[in-house]
Amino acid sequence: MNGKMTLILFSGDLDKALAAFTLATTAASAGMEVTIFFTFWGLNIIKKKRYSQVKGQNPLQRMFNLMSTSKLPISKLNMLGLGPAMMNIAMKKVGMTQLRDLKDLARTLRVKYIACSTSCGFFGLKQEDLVPEVDEFAGASSYLAKAMESKINLFI
Amino acid sequence: MNGKMTLILFSGDLDKALAAFTLATTAASAGMEVTIFFTFWGLNIIKKKRYSQVKGQNPLQRMFNLMSTSKLPISKLNMLGLGPAMMNIAMKKVGMTQLRDLKDLARTLRVKYIACSTSCGFFGLKQEDLVPEVDEFAGASSYLAKAMESKINLFI
Amino acid sequence: MNGKMTLILFSGDLDKALAAFTLATTAASAGMEVTIFFTFWGLNIIKKKRYSQVKGQNPLQRMFNLMSTSKLPISKLNMLGLGPAMMNIAMKKVGMTQLRDLKDLARTLRVKYIACSTSCGFFGLKQEDLVPEVDEFAGASSYLAKAMESKINLFI
Repeated sequence: MNGKMTLILFSGDLDKALAAFTLATTAASAGMEVTIFFTFWGLNIIKKKRYSQVKGQNPLQRMFNLMSTSKLPISKLNMLGLGPAMMNIAMKKVGMTQLRDLKDLARTLRVKYIACSTSCGFFGLKQEDLVPEVDEFAGASSYLAKAMESKINLFI
Repeated sequence: MNGKMTLILFSGDLDKALAAFTLATTAASAGMEVTIFFTFWGLNIIKKKRYSQVKGQNPLQRMFNLMSTSKLPISKLNMLGLGPAMMNIAMKKVGMTQLRDLKDLARTLRVKYIACSTSCGFFGLKQEDLVPEVDEFAGASSYLAKAMESKINLFI
Repeated sequence: MNGKMTLILFSGDLDKALAAFTLATTAASAGMEVTIFFTFWGLNIIKKKRYSQVKGQNPLQRMFNLMSTSKLPISKLNMLGLGPAMMNIAMKKVGMTQLRDLKDLARTLRVKYIACSTSCGFFGLKQEDLVPEVDEFAGASSYLAKAMESKINLFI
């Protein structure tokens, strides 16, 4: 399939991240050029597991930074973390691809990652706090330029 | 109006379902070709009221299956189910079309329903568990093919 | 940048409103024609601070009307209102533009506001209850006409 797609990944929920990466990898497998713009809570998905705790962070930044990339909440039935655990079990049982594997596949298929620089500033995240696969640190205007060339643009 | 629209209905909230079906029926009334791709919690909207409980379901599948199609939560002010009840009263009072009626209208206007096969597998749903109006069980690639031909694509 | 963009602002959360207005003002600064369609909880963002309390409102309408435009919740880590307060502090600290200022900028850049007439009816809102910047009270068909001419359409 010829054409481009952009996804704004605003949410940091496991279920929405799964939806985004399933769309991204399916499109990229079919030959489309895919860009994911990670903003706000979505940045949690591309945070390194351990990263430099900086002094002088405000409470919201500290809380965001305590959110674990490997234990994302889900948008319904979260039940204090029990939901995501059950979700992972259910996914394994039916042989559904885990987020970790979808992320690996996305990189192999050269899905482009843009980390929203404004949100990074807001959460006190630096380039070294994010996974090395991030292609670009940029703002909304970079996203818009990509979206203008794309057939499919979604906000997740 | 000539042209196509696709909606991904990821959410199972009453308010978001109302937004999706209002857009879908308005567009279809104006002559547009509309496809709704039901995925994740959105599948709850096209579940049959009673369906075959299968043995061996995991806890998440059982919880999802206990969610009632006729009592969807709302995304704000849900208040343990009080919000949706108040919402239905408010809708009746101002003569707003109920979701049930919008769904009937959508079928009359030949809005196309695709049930995400990956999510169905995840929740342990079979074809006979969903309303007969579902046109197709398919994955993300079917959605992408439709979206590539459409002027408007939204993720709800 | 030449072209049009529409945003459906369904959410009344501060973080999503910030995302919407950042996209809208960035696009409008670059020369794009931007329309925001405020529906459901998103109407809270364009409500006047004080407006005419009408008799005969149902409980949901009263609760919606008690929601304060100047104290929007956030979609994650809301923590009974502590989250948004921390968010505002964090935004000031890093010099990020506040929603109030983004809204002013949006008007200067002539971002078009449509208030969903169906949702206004549902919440018992009249034209005089909304900020004077609203250009149009209209339903889904007005939105669809705009979206059909636009390169980028997002549901937030």
